[in-house]
Amino acid sequence: MIEIKPDRLLSDLRALAKFGQYKTGVDRIAFSALDIEARKWIAQRYKEAGLDTSMDRYGTVYGAAPGVSKAVLIGSHSDTVPRGGWLDGALGVIYGLEVARAAQEQGDLPIGIDAINFQDEEGTYLPCLGSRAMIGTIDDAALAAAKATDGSKLIDAIAGAGLTGEPRRLDPARHIAFLESHIEQGPRLEHSGNKVAIITSIAGIRRMQVLSEGRADHAGTTPVDMRSDALTPLLRFGLFVADRFPALGNTETMWNIGRIEATPGAANVVPSGARLTLEFRDSDDAVLDRIEAAVIDAIAALNKAGAHITSELTAKISPTPMDNGIADTFEQAARAVGYGYERMVSGAGHDAMFLARKIPTGMIFVPSIGGRSHDIAENTKDEDIVAGCVVMARAADILARKV
Amino acid sequence: MIEIKPDRLLSDLRALAKFGQYKTGVDRIAFSALDIEARKWIAQRYKEAGLDTSMDRYGTVYGAAPGVSKAVLIGSHSDTVPRGGWLDGALGVIYGLEVARAAQEQGDLPIGIDAINFQDEEGTYLPCLGSRAMIGTIDDAALAAAKATDGSKLIDAIAGAGLTGEPRRLDPARHIAFLESHIEQGPRLEHSGNKVAIITSIAGIRRMQVLSEGRADHAGTTPVDMRSDALTPLLRFGLFVADRFPALGNTETMWNIGRIEATPGAANVVPSGARLTLEFRDSDDAVLDRIEAAVIDAIAALNKAGAHITSELTAKISPTPMDNGIADTFEQAARAVGYGYERMVSGAGHDAMFLARKIPTGMIFVPSIGGRSHDIAENTKDEDIVAGCVVMARAADILARKV
Repeated sequence: MIEIKPDRLLSDLRALAKFGQYKTGVDRIAFSALDIEARKWIAQRYKEAGLDTSMDRYGTVYGAAPGVSKAVLIGSHSDTVPRGGWLDGALGVIYGLEVARAAQEQGDLPIGIDAINFQDEEGTYLPCLGSRAMIGTIDDAALAAAKATDGSKLIDAIAGAGLTGEPRRLDPARHIAFLESHIEQGPRLEHSGNKVAIITSIAGIRRMQVLSEGRADHAGTTPVDMRSDALTPLLRFGLFVADRFPALGNTETMWNIGRIEATPGAANVVPSGARLTLEFRDSDDAVLDRIEAAVIDAIAALNKAGAHITSELTAKISPTPMDNGIADTFEQAARAVGYGYERMVSGAGHDAMFLARKIPTGMIFVPSIGGRSHDIAENTKDEDIVAGCVVMARAADILARKV
Repeated sequence: MIEIKPDRLLSDLRALAKFGQYKTGVDRIAFSALDIEARKWIAQRYKEAGLDTSMDRYGTVYGAAPGVSKAVLIGSHSDTVPRGGWLDGALGVIYGLEVARAAQEQGDLPIGIDAINFQDEEGTYLPCLGSRAMIGTIDDAALAAAKATDGSKLIDAIAGAGLTGEPRRLDPARHIAFLESHIEQGPRLEHSGNKVAIITSIAGIRRMQVLSEGRADHAGTTPVDMRSDALTPLLRFGLFVADRFPALGNTETMWNIGRIEATPGAANVVPSGARLTLEFRDSDDAVLDRIEAAVIDAIAALNKAGAHITSELTAKISPTPMDNGIADTFEQAARAVGYGYERMVSGAGHDAMFLARKIPTGMIFVPSIGGRSHDIAENTKDEDIVAGCVVMARAADILARKV
């Protein structure tokens, strides 16, 4: 049985958080000097654990268990959003290190535990760059086009970091599974009191721009019934979302209107335009189709009543189911150590989305205090951090002994 | 009877529009070189009409009928908003010129017709600067503080224009009335087919900032029932305005939500804040009080249901009634020349608001094609421009002969 060492796990997590420490959080964006320093530190830990270690041109650090032809791959990413939290991807990276290290110490597994630390999951230049590159979906054109919001280019960042290693490719003959863990980034585990969430699917996302058109008139001199106000119909659409979406989805369905504006935006001018951004997520494409159709119908009904609303689907990401067998293995592991667990859909994207296209993949979440993430307030209790790693180690052990 | 000359009226209006012509409109902001040139051109027309003419330090041009101790004062302002229309204040200025000029030609009135062209009604530096100065409400502190949106100071603009004349003060012993005319800036006359609107009041304005507070959460990972979304309650407030305000006011009541926004404004972040700007106008303070109280009640009801909304009254301008006797005189004049007319509340502010504090004041509006104003598309049919001046001349004649 792989036995992790809780103190070493917590101490490595805290050591990693020193790279880019910002107040109680971390600022360690992909390809920054601190990001590269942190990756070299992780590579050193992999080596000390006895893994064959390399860093590729993207900064992805891979530690292969020596002398085996098959392995369970465990990891996540160590880059952060600006002024982000100390756990996020780092938790899953250190879980991979600790489980691989403990497995090496144990020395009795029939196959190996490999550890991985992907690059730029947060999309400073290109979201999930490391995991996409590992499954071979990054071409030269995508690399050349990738830019940060400040205009700096990915290829310059790679050159600036002095990275030259051959891109690390997934080896489906060796890698029998990929296991990732993450903080929940939401409040559900904290509310339920369960120690881990077993992820059944990473939700699909659809994003729509909803635009309303009207006519700008002087709001002090144009009677209300002679106007064509762009905003009021958009408010009605917004409340359709708030009031009707609950019946269209299920308890895992998420939606949000995060942006709204009226133009020209003067107090005394009737809005000639208004727009909002609507996003909705679910693990089932059929649910997303149903919601999108309801949105189209609602807009048609408003237009029939005199509005001039159009919508455009600006993003459409399909749901990614996690492997059932691996979810069952996580469940078996949680039960074996006596931790409460629940099945959950991940509303946020992760490197596991890309690995799942090639090999059996699974994820677990640990509780987030107050549901906070991507913020320096992000945190998880030490005991919950340890519990997650125990479940991860137990699941890896079960998978390794099944082969 | 004062007989205006339609061709001369239209030709002077078109000549004035050459100063700052921009496509089909005019860009002649207060104290610009073109504004001062236009004012000198108007002063020259006043002189040619036989008026004692002066320009004061603010650029207000005043033409006094010679040899009389009493006069009806007629005019408006020749400054424009950036890329504004060719009529707006210019119409009322040229009406003043034409009526005063025709009265001089007639030579049989018992009192005089004085003409006036106020400065910066549009508020490039200080709204209604000329008319406020004329009634004596501009002090040195207000002058020193007045700035354009680009930061340039009014006192520098005055110095730059080389203006030094003593501020022109209203003389209540001489000025028995002030008459202003303007384009409607709305569509009502065009719809009714009437030639003129007789203004009974300039509406009061109240402006409110309505703020909603919530908590920012990841919109992909925080279930909807565990969020505190700031935007949804604000949408409900917005529809309260759209759906309930019609019953709170009357046909002259105007309202508008011209600005709305959600913060932080990202598609995948639940809004932690949302705000909108609400403005409402009416000629009756009691109606404005009733609406404001209903707004407060609606916010209280939303807060009782879990919202966190606050409101702040950011502007409160009382209604300004026009003089009843002058409104009756305009009606008598319109009837005498056989033009359709209607009584109307002015939703927009005008120099007449300030003159009305000191002397009997009245206004008429002429139709705006498509209700457009403060835009290069602003226009009025020639026959409607002439009709308005005929009514203005007839009303001045009636007032002058009543003394």
